[in-house]
Amino acid sequence: MITAKKVSENLLKIRNQGPLVHNITNFVVMNNTANALLSIGASPVMAHAPEEMENMAGIASALVINIGTLSNKWIEGMVIAGKTASKRGIPIVLDPVGAGATSFRTQTCHKIIQECSPTIIRGNASEIMALISDDVKTKGVDSTESSDKAVELAKTLSNETGAVVSISGPVDFITNGDQVLSIKNDIPLMPKVTGMGCTASALTGAVAAVCPTPIEAAATGMALMAVAGEMTMPQAQGPGTFQMHFLDALFQMGEAEVLKYLQL
Amino acid sequence: MITAKKVSENLLKIRNQGPLVHNITNFVVMNNTANALLSIGASPVMAHAPEEMENMAGIASALVINIGTLSNKWIEGMVIAGKTASKRGIPIVLDPVGAGATSFRTQTCHKIIQECSPTIIRGNASEIMALISDDVKTKGVDSTESSDKAVELAKTLSNETGAVVSISGPVDFITNGDQVLSIKNDIPLMPKVTGMGCTASALTGAVAAVCPTPIEAAATGMALMAVAGEMTMPQAQGPGTFQMHFLDALFQMGEAEVLKYLQL
Amino acid sequence: MITAKKVSENLLKIRNQGPLVHNITNFVVMNNTANALLSIGASPVMAHAPEEMENMAGIASALVINIGTLSNKWIEGMVIAGKTASKRGIPIVLDPVGAGATSFRTQTCHKIIQECSPTIIRGNASEIMALISDDVKTKGVDSTESSDKAVELAKTLSNETGAVVSISGPVDFITNGDQVLSIKNDIPLMPKVTGMGCTASALTGAVAAVCPTPIEAAATGMALMAVAGEMTMPQAQGPGTFQMHFLDALFQMGEAEVLKYLQL
Repeated sequence: MITAKKVSENLLKIRNQGPLVHNITNFVVMNNTANALLSIGASPVMAHAPEEMENMAGIASALVINIGTLSNKWIEGMVIAGKTASKRGIPIVLDPVGAGATSFRTQTCHKIIQECSPTIIRGNASEIMALISDDVKTKGVDSTESSDKAVELAKTLSNETGAVVSISGPVDFITNGDQVLSIKNDIPLMPKVTGMGCTASALTGAVAAVCPTPIEAAATGMALMAVAGEMTMPQAQGPGTFQMHFLDALFQMGEAEVLKYLQL
Repeated sequence: MITAKKVSENLLKIRNQGPLVHNITNFVVMNNTANALLSIGASPVMAHAPEEMENMAGIASALVINIGTLSNKWIEGMVIAGKTASKRGIPIVLDPVGAGATSFRTQTCHKIIQECSPTIIRGNASEIMALISDDVKTKGVDSTESSDKAVELAKTLSNETGAVVSISGPVDFITNGDQVLSIKNDIPLMPKVTGMGCTASALTGAVAAVCPTPIEAAATGMALMAVAGEMTMPQAQGPGTFQMHFLDALFQMGEAEVLKYLQL
Repeated sequence: MITAKKVSENLLKIRNQGPLVHNITNFVVMNNTANALLSIGASPVMAHAPEEMENMAGIASALVINIGTLSNKWIEGMVIAGKTASKRGIPIVLDPVGAGATSFRTQTCHKIIQECSPTIIRGNASEIMALISDDVKTKGVDSTESSDKAVELAKTLSNETGAVVSISGPVDFITNGDQVLSIKNDIPLMPKVTGMGCTASALTGAVAAVCPTPIEAAATGMALMAVAGEMTMPQAQGPGTFQMHFLDALFQMGEAEVLKYLQL
């Protein structure tokens, strides 16, 4: 269902169409997220004020909602943007950063899922699990559970919500509740750089803007991360150089690199 | 009216005087903007709370207002800071990020122009045009109109507002409604890095703090961007390396580089 | 009282325990602060909403409060988090960014000191002095006073508040009101990069989470900055390369580098 060829085609579509991706995201990652979208060929806009959410989500080709540094006023904007996007039929990606760490975050995710019906939910295993079960506690924003259990719960969340669920980890799993796709590249430095999951969600939004099949879009998003990560590793001496060269890799990536590096 | 020699002299003034530049700017670019100001020799302060705007704008040598990630509370702070700066006679630079993309942004710019009388308005062609005509729609924050038309409209905006208008693009144009200056360096990677326009506005503020002629200050600001961009290009393999080496270039820049690279 | 061996042991404890450090910090530095904490081996979480402060400070091993880009809603969150941390007995680091520049900042620091009893207060000389005396005015966030005077005032502040006070500068001084420790490495590019003080406060929080003696934790925090700075200088051509390689240095640092570079 996902192939290097499809990933390359989706990458080319982003480059050719330059979709406008509306991000309501956290303060930590805004610069990197915007640069990642520019590097891959999309056109990012970051905006959150309730007063302009209808306008902004009204001209975008995809909406990415990331709850990393949440507050009540922003939730208001997220819901307005989400409803506008939902009405217009453009894809919505939800990144439930830190779900499970506080009830404020978990409840906000439930609210967004109910009122906006995200197309794709992308997080780590703990976050995904927190959206189903009260039993799972996250320690900050790092995953603490095994992947196998996560896949099963992701299928459950996908069936409950109707969203494609994308779980990042050493192996990434993407499911529509039925099929499960996986991306097997494991990039050791990636968890040592803040906001790589947020970048994955943003790229997933860019792909979803040009690719009508959510499970394929979500898998392509993770594939782009994986290929850029492989391109970056030989040039990285630590998190600083990794973060910088990763943007260059997104910019330089073409079909050759996808074919060379992607592990399905 | 603008020469490499004047640009060098203004650069030296910034280095010698280290002007305090008060920025009310967007979440995406704050780190880069602060670093760009430090690298060029200015002293940045980022603050937005209405409660401290009189104090902060009261000790600054220039104020930069950037509406990139707007909200009502911030607008309140912008107006207080702008009025304080206006009363004190220090230069105000307005960056109308995304004007035209939403009516909230366009109206906020009109409010700031009316209540604070900015000295310099710096944006891309779409943003500048959006402040005059309702007919121009921007797609996110990227320019979609030709430069020639932009210059004419910039003259119009300058005449309407009394501000110097600085339009960035492949060629930058700076006008006081009468004279038009241009900076002709075209840096291909610059549009692929988020917030370079915001950096241009911040540097323009730093120059305006030490240079009493707004059109010369605005042109010098764009000239510093151009020279740093030329210094950076040979070292950049993509947006990541460009963003980093650009800061080094601002730090390393001296008269020799200005003379070598600036294209007027 | 502080030795390279103790610094190395504390570094190893951070690497082994991966303490969760809750940061309420400013927009300018969030990305770098989170990356610095990841690079040193801690687990950062950035969160500010009053609604989740009890939950978040309730699972953290240390709390870092940084007032760099202040607003009323954030102060509310800071105080709730600070009281929760205080009740739980986890260390609290306060970074009084820009104290003295506006009365809003100075008063907020006084409020946090009174209501939350920070374990360690870390700032530059002007900021520390502003918390004692109304006579000291800061120009933005840069220090304008001599170190000797600062040490005396820091002792005063330490005695007044019960907190360890850590002053950064060409020589860093750390005092519990009685003893004074110093870190003598002077890293010339450090003041040209925004947020290095904020990084120092965050690292101080990470050390405090694993080291029960506040004066030792505070000195270790500054020692980690100093050693990483020395490791970075040979690779830095300016503020851009410094900022990036500094993260790599935190990641690569081991006992050998601490022994080689630390100047006490």
